[in-house]
Amino acid sequence: MKHVFAFLAALVFGALVSGQVAAQTAPAAKERVIIQVSTPEQRVWNQALNYVENLQELYGKDNVEIEIVALGWGIGMLKFDSPLATRVADSMKRGAKLQACEVTMGRQKLTKQDMLPDIGYVPAGLGQIIRRQKEGWSYIGG
Amino acid sequence: MKHVFAFLAALVFGALVSGQVAAQTAPAAKERVIIQVSTPEQRVWNQALNYVENLQELYGKDNVEIEIVALGWGIGMLKFDSPLATRVADSMKRGAKLQACEVTMGRQKLTKQDMLPDIGYVPAGLGQIIRRQKEGWSYIGG
Amino acid sequence: MKHVFAFLAALVFGALVSGQVAAQTAPAAKERVIIQVSTPEQRVWNQALNYVENLQELYGKDNVEIEIVALGWGIGMLKFDSPLATRVADSMKRGAKLQACEVTMGRQKLTKQDMLPDIGYVPAGLGQIIRRQKEGWSYIGG
Repeated sequence: MKHVFAFLAALVFGALVSGQVAAQTAPAAKERVIIQVSTPEQRVWNQALNYVENLQELYGKDNVEIEIVALGWGIGMLKFDSPLATRVADSMKRGAKLQACEVTMGRQKLTKQDMLPDIGYVPAGLGQIIRRQKEGWSYIGG
Repeated sequence: MKHVFAFLAALVFGALVSGQVAAQTAPAAKERVIIQVSTPEQRVWNQALNYVENLQELYGKDNVEIEIVALGWGIGMLKFDSPLATRVADSMKRGAKLQACEVTMGRQKLTKQDMLPDIGYVPAGLGQIIRRQKEGWSYIGG
Repeated sequence: MKHVFAFLAALVFGALVSGQVAAQTAPAAKERVIIQVSTPEQRVWNQALNYVENLQELYGKDNVEIEIVALGWGIGMLKFDSPLATRVADSMKRGAKLQACEVTMGRQKLTKQDMLPDIGYVPAGLGQIIRRQKEGWSYIGG
């Protein structure tokens, strides 16, 4: 009888503790940051790209996942004629994901031919930001 | 003895699993999004109203709760002479809540007579945004 | 046998319930709000300082911790020649923390001599905002 008790108590305790430990250590594994760019100001676009550099310096390039979502008034950052084309390419080479919102592209009648090469696309920029927040990513406004 | 063990193990396991399942499915029930509008730029106000349309198309009108809180420099969006009066009314007809911050109204000596008809009011815009975040709503900056 | 069962069931039930209660009451202890200031517009800086007053009126001065992080284009808010020097000092006297981002200071070759007296410093503004979000603070965009 005592063995059964000890065994079950250990089982319960172990399950609860391991759940807690998992909850505490899981987010520490890798930082994950979602950045919203939704304004037309070039200084905001530049700043978002600075954020990529800063976050990689802070955490180490391999310890942080960064996604910039350009939507609404921010879509110009990822258009073919973006004044930041070179910096955008650099950020992608560094490992950041730059995602254009296809809802915005539809509203502005933009196709992938109008956009910078090699960027990513998401069906809906807001949906992506919401999904990432729910997955535990940190949110940074533009 | 073996039956007791099996029963208890099942109880523990069931409790833990159901807790996990609840945690994973509860937020999926309905998307909930709080949008902060705190700048005086009309393009930001327009964009916030675009967000309502986009989110309802994305999730389905009945599957998402949307609240726009206008505060500080953003309060003009909900004033009687708002250039977006028609779009604001449309968004409310679609089911979005548009909430004016009464702290801001007090600072600017605005009464409900100065505001668009049928909008909602919150005692403090910041307090509402904070409360919603704590309730698990996703946050979108203006 | 029945005693063992009852004891273990109570143990499991108690552990689960106490976990839930802790999760619900812990965040209510004190409101904690992190405010990002990353634009050069003086009206945004002023508004962030309004937020301090509003939050303290809303929750009571002793029931809310407020941190404003100035980074990127927002660093001017905390520079020696800030047009808001007096209001910044007032906010600090009220108990809010105003933190300058040292990454931004490095990029702009600013030293602590270039900054307002008595402000705080964080090695990286983004890192601070991310850390606070993960600690459960509410996030307010600038």
